[in-house]
Amino acid sequence: MSFLNKLSANVLTQPVLEINLNRLVENYKLLSKIIAPATPSAVVKDDAYGIGAEIVAKTLYEHAGCRHFWVAHAVEAERIVSCLPKATIYVLQGIGADSLELFEKYKFTPVISSPEMLSYWKKHEIKDVKPAIHVETGLNRLGFREDDLKKLSSKDLKRFSLVMSHLACADEKDHFMNEHQLNCFRKIKEKYFKDIPGSLSASDGAFLGDEFNFDMVRLGAAMYGINTAPYRENQMKNVITLKAPVLQISDLKKGEFVGYSATYRANTNRKIAIVSIGYGDGLPRSLSNVGKVFFKASDKWEEARILGRVSMDNVICDVTDVKNVSVGDFGYLIMDDYTLDDIARDAGTIGYEVLSRIGKNTRYNKKYVLSAR
Amino acid sequence: MSFLNKLSANVLTQPVLEINLNRLVENYKLLSKIIAPATPSAVVKDDAYGIGAEIVAKTLYEHAGCRHFWVAHAVEAERIVSCLPKATIYVLQGIGADSLELFEKYKFTPVISSPEMLSYWKKHEIKDVKPAIHVETGLNRLGFREDDLKKLSSKDLKRFSLVMSHLACADEKDHFMNEHQLNCFRKIKEKYFKDIPGSLSASDGAFLGDEFNFDMVRLGAAMYGINTAPYRENQMKNVITLKAPVLQISDLKKGEFVGYSATYRANTNRKIAIVSIGYGDGLPRSLSNVGKVFFKASDKWEEARILGRVSMDNVICDVTDVKNVSVGDFGYLIMDDYTLDDIARDAGTIGYEVLSRIGKNTRYNKKYVLSAR
Repeated sequence: MSFLNKLSANVLTQPVLEINLNRLVENYKLLSKIIAPATPSAVVKDDAYGIGAEIVAKTLYEHAGCRHFWVAHAVEAERIVSCLPKATIYVLQGIGADSLELFEKYKFTPVISSPEMLSYWKKHEIKDVKPAIHVETGLNRLGFREDDLKKLSSKDLKRFSLVMSHLACADEKDHFMNEHQLNCFRKIKEKYFKDIPGSLSASDGAFLGDEFNFDMVRLGAAMYGINTAPYRENQMKNVITLKAPVLQISDLKKGEFVGYSATYRANTNRKIAIVSIGYGDGLPRSLSNVGKVFFKASDKWEEARILGRVSMDNVICDVTDVKNVSVGDFGYLIMDDYTLDDIARDAGTIGYEVLSRIGKNTRYNKKYVLSAR
Repeated sequence: MSFLNKLSANVLTQPVLEINLNRLVENYKLLSKIIAPATPSAVVKDDAYGIGAEIVAKTLYEHAGCRHFWVAHAVEAERIVSCLPKATIYVLQGIGADSLELFEKYKFTPVISSPEMLSYWKKHEIKDVKPAIHVETGLNRLGFREDDLKKLSSKDLKRFSLVMSHLACADEKDHFMNEHQLNCFRKIKEKYFKDIPGSLSASDGAFLGDEFNFDMVRLGAAMYGINTAPYRENQMKNVITLKAPVLQISDLKKGEFVGYSATYRANTNRKIAIVSIGYGDGLPRSLSNVGKVFFKASDKWEEARILGRVSMDNVICDVTDVKNVSVGDFGYLIMDDYTLDDIARDAGTIGYEVLSRIGKNTRYNKKYVLSAR
């Protein structure tokens, strides 16, 4: 029997991204309880943080009763509108000459964030649409400053169906900005929008206490499993499993280099595995020489350090101490015991950015887990 | 006339990504000249580095006569095959149980990189397909090590239509690895694949000298405008223009904070612009507090530093010293005078990763520039 015939590996090449929509719904429902009696709403901008706005929006609509959705751009609202026959879709970046047509066609709710945009809105007002207004309370990003609110007529102030703002530091429970922004929002709401529902918190604000909830909370990152309250254990369930097959296992001899620019050199003989995933699949290149790949052993995980640079299609990891790993086995990049928050920490960023990158790539074998209810 | 009626800004909300395919073709043709008489081939993996594999492959096929294409995965080959009636499509990650069906259907050319994969190929050999073989010469990534080549029968060695390897440090002209890998590839080719065409260089290797070219060069990054020979001025033309409209301009008072986690605090009164693009559009979050946005003045660019964290949908920049900027004006993130290489340097990564992230996002107004020839 020849050398080759003795090799009976289960050869695979494609990375696999598994998205657990059951858990996403559970997270949404738990968050809804935490913020009750405020109305929950779902942030599905950026293609639902990369994991698929259509299927996420449809699932939340059908399985969790969600009726309020937030996107950034009208083109994003257009992609989900047909799944949401009776929902309100808020468009955070607002309305302009490049999106007016979509607003006219679908009656999305623009969030008006500046005097210029309000002026534009008044010239192009759409029948039966009552926009939301974004007011600035300390983030110094989008939103009306009080100097401009002062100049609005009482008729202009009554145009809106919702007043919203956004917290800057809600993932730090005791940050002085939280109290400051809360007071600022209260004052503005009282003074200019007394009879209009308010929304201040996203899913990081949801853990700060009932006074931050107002009438509606915008549930995003936490629903996707990210710990938006890192000062305590994550109450959310992990939604993402990312894995890729081992294409090859090789010996690395003492003194040899690994990867582009030869940034890793072996001090001793090592065993390496080449895993079929790279930054072209959204894996942050900043994991070079610091990231980890995990392999399933019977009842635990074995950890393999990434060696050298992450390349576009592959990562190389050190499996010298991994007991049972063969060509065709899956290496795990994100899973319940090494979550979006963990990989983000190792990559020097936040789970939001990692998630936003991962899901948009089109070469995964992408699997959605969703049980009928 | 009221306060609002006086505002006549051209309100816009959507970022714009412009891809100049004319320049991409020019780059390909210039590279083809540099490597002549070796055969040029185009690397269109990772959705043509994010900018659209279908349109890039079709353009190179029709406007530049390209007949050899490289992708990483069979699912990528499937997306371009209908545009390329008479081309060879090499699949770098090779063949396995999860892609066999696509290879059988379309007769793509797998690149076999390990004994296990060769064993798999022998069991599932596809009529009329002669695979390529990847040999390892120092990158310690995918490829047959010589120990395994030795064990192959002469019949097995004759199965292949092309022998390839990949350089680790070709962007550093004098790196010792270049010579080392060249010699190693020569030796292996001479010993095992004397009569088979060879390919060692990608577009960084194209600038190292004729001896690196062998029979085929794989043109990728340089074709997309990236400087793969950073030790000298870029000979390639920029292909990418990325811009986004200013949504709002505001005063930032001394002592105020900007963005998430309040990482920027104003020492003096500043004027800020909120620009409608963020990491949800692929802009690296590592540009927080260090990146730049450019505004067009009559005959020059005015530079505005990014303040605070890059968020998912917006960046905030300091326009205190920018003379003429209004709501609705475009801020430029990538353009001829601030290229992929420049933004990558500021973000702490390489142009390849930035490009791979940018193009895949679906909320751009994406414009391809291509003149009829």
